[in-house]
Amino acid sequence: MLYFEDFVVGQKFVTASRRVDAAEIIEFAAKYDPQPFHLDAEAAKASLFGDLAASGWHSAAMMMRLIVDSELRPAGGIIGGGGELQWLKPVRAGDDLHVECEIIELRESRSRPRPGLVKVRNTMFNQHGEAVQTFTPTLLVERRE
Amino acid sequence: MLYFEDFVVGQKFVTASRRVDAAEIIEFAAKYDPQPFHLDAEAAKASLFGDLAASGWHSAAMMMRLIVDSELRPAGGIIGGGGELQWLKPVRAGDDLHVECEIIELRESRSRPRPGLVKVRNTMFNQHGEAVQTFTPTLLVERRE
Repeated sequence: MLYFEDFVVGQKFVTASRRVDAAEIIEFAAKYDPQPFHLDAEAAKASLFGDLAASGWHSAAMMMRLIVDSELRPAGGIIGGGGELQWLKPVRAGDDLHVECEIIELRESRSRPRPGLVKVRNTMFNQHGEAVQTFTPTLLVERRE
Repeated sequence: MLYFEDFVVGQKFVTASRRVDAAEIIEFAAKYDPQPFHLDAEAAKASLFGDLAASGWHSAAMMMRLIVDSELRPAGGIIGGGGELQWLKPVRAGDDLHVECEIIELRESRSRPRPGLVKVRNTMFNQHGEAVQTFTPTLLVERRE
């Protein structure tokens, strides 16, 4: 458990890696993003993606799961107000993804006992070392008593 | 099908609405965001959320599905490079969510035949008229021949 006082700017956390499979890409898309290029490799050929690609929201959800299972364990849980999300490259079936998290800013909130604010830059990489997605949330992290 | 030339700044699209249920909140969280406040109403009482709350990534995925099923149908599909995502209020079991999409900026890309850039502000509301989430992506939209 990491309290606000345990974080330092420049600190890094690296997650485990996760293999993406076509069945999961299609299952997620069928529920939440049923567009042809997320559902069918043949249909994807006619699209900007050129081949089956995971929904960006599926990529984001996989990034979250990798972080929840990592050593980045803020007291009170991983709770954020949002941030800038960028999709840089398609995520494909067979990709091995991992996330690197860097603490880039720490801010006290004005009135105690409000949580501290920890800004993190999360970058998800594929097996070729290409950054496929970034998300830069501000987390609300409890202070020690 | 809407081509780049069919969009106008200020244009609005309103999606259908979707009821959130506890089983779906828990199922999504078990796969992608297994933190106690997304898995169990009792455990959530001790958290910042105070009661079972949907993962922000589940909220984002539901927003996407509402938009995919709406009249906002860009030629080539809904494909974005990312944008600013904000979670404003918890999403709860029993909530009825809908999304309002407003076209806020149109940009030509430099070199033809690259797609046009359409910036959209998507705001998801609950049944109390509260904005629970915003996402402001830039979409890549095909031009007419």
